[in-house]
Amino acid sequence: MLILLLRQILNPDTLVSIVGVLAAILTTSSFLPQMIKAYRTKSMHDVSRYLMSMFATGTVLWMVYGIYKSDLVIVGANAIATVFNVVLLFMKFSYGKPTKVA
Amino acid sequence: MLILLLRQILNPDTLVSIVGVLAAILTTSSFLPQMIKAYRTKSMHDVSRYLMSMFATGTVLWMVYGIYKSDLVIVGANAIATVFNVVLLFMKFSYGKPTKVA
Repeated sequence: MLILLLRQILNPDTLVSIVGVLAAILTTSSFLPQMIKAYRTKSMHDVSRYLMSMFATGTVLWMVYGIYKSDLVIVGANAIATVFNVVLLFMKFSYGKPTKVA
Repeated sequence: MLILLLRQILNPDTLVSIVGVLAAILTTSSFLPQMIKAYRTKSMHDVSRYLMSMFATGTVLWMVYGIYKSDLVIVGANAIATVFNVVLLFMKFSYGKPTKVA
């Protein structure tokens, strides 16, 4: 039973799917700490608006690519990444003003 | 001749490759404006270090995934994205200190 499970996990296709899911979780959730930081500090002056707008446009295209390739990992990861980046873009418009120093 | 070229471009496989390459160019180059902004302002206080460190770890895993799937678009895009994020992480360590206000 354990050997069967290990053989299943060590199957290259399973391994690469695990790597893909881990990759998707990491690149997608990497925007969460930025959202938390922005929400806490209410400051996004140093964050480029082009980062989020280009990234979100790109993830929409990645979704189209993933749908055609029937790759659910690519579709799912980029769907969530699109949402996160659109939220960050709205936060940038709210918190993007520099803090008055003088 | 023109019809042959159009038929080649309108072929679904060609179209989806174009979408993939455009997606890769957008998500990868989205980090360039952030690098330019950080270089100009010498300030990255509002940028979360977890964004870059998680993203770079994720893109390395995406490269492994792309190599196994023999998908050059995924491998290439993530190789460049890894480099950009490592550079941004170094910039964060240099420019991450908040500007003294008081």
